[in-house]
Amino acid sequence: MSTVKLNDSFEDPITQEVFNDIKKTRSTDYIGNLWKYLSFNPVLLKDIWQEVKSTMSKETLIDKKTKELIYMAVSITNNCSYCIHSHTAAARKLGLTQEEHAEFLRIVSLAAKTNQLLNGMQLPVDQSFNEDA
Amino acid sequence: MSTVKLNDSFEDPITQEVFNDIKKTRSTDYIGNLWKYLSFNPVLLKDIWQEVKSTMSKETLIDKKTKELIYMAVSITNNCSYCIHSHTAAARKLGLTQEEHAEFLRIVSLAAKTNQLLNGMQLPVDQSFNEDA
Amino acid sequence: MSTVKLNDSFEDPITQEVFNDIKKTRSTDYIGNLWKYLSFNPVLLKDIWQEVKSTMSKETLIDKKTKELIYMAVSITNNCSYCIHSHTAAARKLGLTQEEHAEFLRIVSLAAKTNQLLNGMQLPVDQSFNEDA
Amino acid sequence: MSTVKLNDSFEDPITQEVFNDIKKTRSTDYIGNLWKYLSFNPVLLKDIWQEVKSTMSKETLIDKKTKELIYMAVSITNNCSYCIHSHTAAARKLGLTQEEHAEFLRIVSLAAKTNQLLNGMQLPVDQSFNEDA
Amino acid sequence: MSTVKLNDSFEDPITQEVFNDIKKTRSTDYIGNLWKYLSFNPVLLKDIWQEVKSTMSKETLIDKKTKELIYMAVSITNNCSYCIHSHTAAARKLGLTQEEHAEFLRIVSLAAKTNQLLNGMQLPVDQSFNEDA
Amino acid sequence: MSTVKLNDSFEDPITQEVFNDIKKTRSTDYIGNLWKYLSFNPVLLKDIWQEVKSTMSKETLIDKKTKELIYMAVSITNNCSYCIHSHTAAARKLGLTQEEHAEFLRIVSLAAKTNQLLNGMQLPVDQSFNEDA
Repeated sequence: MSTVKLNDSFEDPITQEVFNDIKKTRSTDYIGNLWKYLSFNPVLLKDIWQEVKSTMSKETLIDKKTKELIYMAVSITNNCSYCIHSHTAAARKLGLTQEEHAEFLRIVSLAAKTNQLLNGMQLPVDQSFNEDA
Repeated sequence: MSTVKLNDSFEDPITQEVFNDIKKTRSTDYIGNLWKYLSFNPVLLKDIWQEVKSTMSKETLIDKKTKELIYMAVSITNNCSYCIHSHTAAARKLGLTQEEHAEFLRIVSLAAKTNQLLNGMQLPVDQSFNEDA
Repeated sequence: MSTVKLNDSFEDPITQEVFNDIKKTRSTDYIGNLWKYLSFNPVLLKDIWQEVKSTMSKETLIDKKTKELIYMAVSITNNCSYCIHSHTAAARKLGLTQEEHAEFLRIVSLAAKTNQLLNGMQLPVDQSFNEDA
Repeated sequence: MSTVKLNDSFEDPITQEVFNDIKKTRSTDYIGNLWKYLSFNPVLLKDIWQEVKSTMSKETLIDKKTKELIYMAVSITNNCSYCIHSHTAAARKLGLTQEEHAEFLRIVSLAAKTNQLLNGMQLPVDQSFNEDA
Repeated sequence: MSTVKLNDSFEDPITQEVFNDIKKTRSTDYIGNLWKYLSFNPVLLKDIWQEVKSTMSKETLIDKKTKELIYMAVSITNNCSYCIHSHTAAARKLGLTQEEHAEFLRIVSLAAKTNQLLNGMQLPVDQSFNEDA
Repeated sequence: MSTVKLNDSFEDPITQEVFNDIKKTRSTDYIGNLWKYLSFNPVLLKDIWQEVKSTMSKETLIDKKTKELIYMAVSITNNCSYCIHSHTAAARKLGLTQEEHAEFLRIVSLAAKTNQLLNGMQLPVDQSFNEDA
């Protein structure tokens, strides 16, 4: 099911351009459902792809595997099923082992535990944590 | 304000033991508000500290700075103000620069954006993402 | 699957009354799963329907399509799959076009992005935003 | 700060009626900020109070202290600071001890931990959990 | 689907030990999917089980049915489908009736409603709610 | 407090360019804290401003007041205090009355209520809601 209609073809020229760029950037012929469904609005498709590409596919200060772990952590907390699956798959391609995955899950679930504990206690934040002093 | 009462002293022996272990493990004399307020129940204090220590302070597969970034990502998404402040401060001590912090914020906010977009579209997950095939 | 049991029949008089009012109010013979399953407790069913009806089906200050967009925005952020589907369908019936849907998704995902960015930065709120000055 | 303006007086007759009912129902002269600010729209104030009163103040199947614990659990997870404070205070008046509060916090934070762990793993739900079989 | 691979067998000695303890503690032969999938990392499996067992299966200050209601409230708010199903099933085994379930759902959904209302209004918290005065 | 340091001056040329564009676009001399703090990384500042400007300040299919209501709905659900305040203030400038604000709060809190109710019930989604049939 979906709230938008999947195109039967992907003949729109902007869609074609984005699909070709995805294939080239990721060295694959595979186009995920996200991109296929987003083609219901080619301009939105292009904008989202440009932002994902420049943030996640380019070489930047933070290495690619760490970037995927950060993305996974947010996606798990927001409970976006599609995002959890696609970014875990991406992290595996970048070398995430089963042992690292288990450790990662340990960290995200501990964080959720202490987040909830602290929210329940409503403590004052230590002044020493203030970066803007 | 807080929903629990801060102890006037910290004379309980379990509390003393935990505070000493925090100081030793972190090579500091500083005890954050989290630990001070948690001493309203010394057994809970000890359990939380043991888990945080073994997951975050020990050398494990994932390096300490990356572990803090994962913790920050979850805390931001859960909007735990205390946790965001304390773990950002911890990441800075481990060498997080302003430029890396900006890149980190770019990733977490992009993840939130696509999480929301995908949740709005309710797409079927690609079978190729299934690790359990 | 469900955590409550669907009735085999809907013979309870309160359930009958609510179903008839839904059909009349919405000019349809279709009763959605929400109402069918809620009939496991007819009083709860009636209370929920009365509130949905008076807030969403009545003519009020905010027009019906805008009301559905607000409902969709909350439901997407809370990631309620059923609610996202049902209120997107309702908005389409009220005239939401594909182009408007794409723009709507652009706004909700941008909002999520800046929400997360701001939560990560933990900024002080401008005094000028205070309505209660 | 607030996004709505606090009334200087509370002379509206619906507001007066609600305030009197709060005082009588709770056997107190204290009116919390929630009710004072909600009086910017007396009809909304009355509707919210009626629902809170009938669900939380009336004798029902679930005892009052347990009802407050459920309310606290939701409010902590949604991170509503006002709600966490007011319902923890209400639970204390109903007899919640420091030891029970600590145990409660242990449960809500464990739940958040396993929620996050499970969301990260994206497991299939056991058919045996289906109530609607 | 899942982001981790289900073991074909469960021959690891730690896994065996945990499975036997689950069966003994819960007086059942049934092992849920959570425990089966968690065996991809037996140490993580054991740690999670130990914490769930000591918090939820042991006799403590808060009775077992109330503990499950608290767990359900958090899980519903975090929208963890697996957790909602498994803990609702657990509560039913502990005697939760359909009428109590309906009342529970009424409380959690009212809490969510007022959480959102209060978050929208951004009210100052009453000083009288401060436990740490 | 903040997790990033506010610049003492705003002399960076990209920052100057963005601030000037904000003033021109919004016909005001006021620069909110978001933009001031984001100037710790001028490229991030510029990217966020460009996206907010093109989505929210430009004339598009959805009128500006409705766009702010959608933004407010997401921000309330994500509980971003800064965002709730700034976008409520923006909506007021666009003509949002107290009566409309009360109705808006009624809709977002009802949506949260039914989201939570539905998440608790875990109902199957009606096939008739599927846009991709």
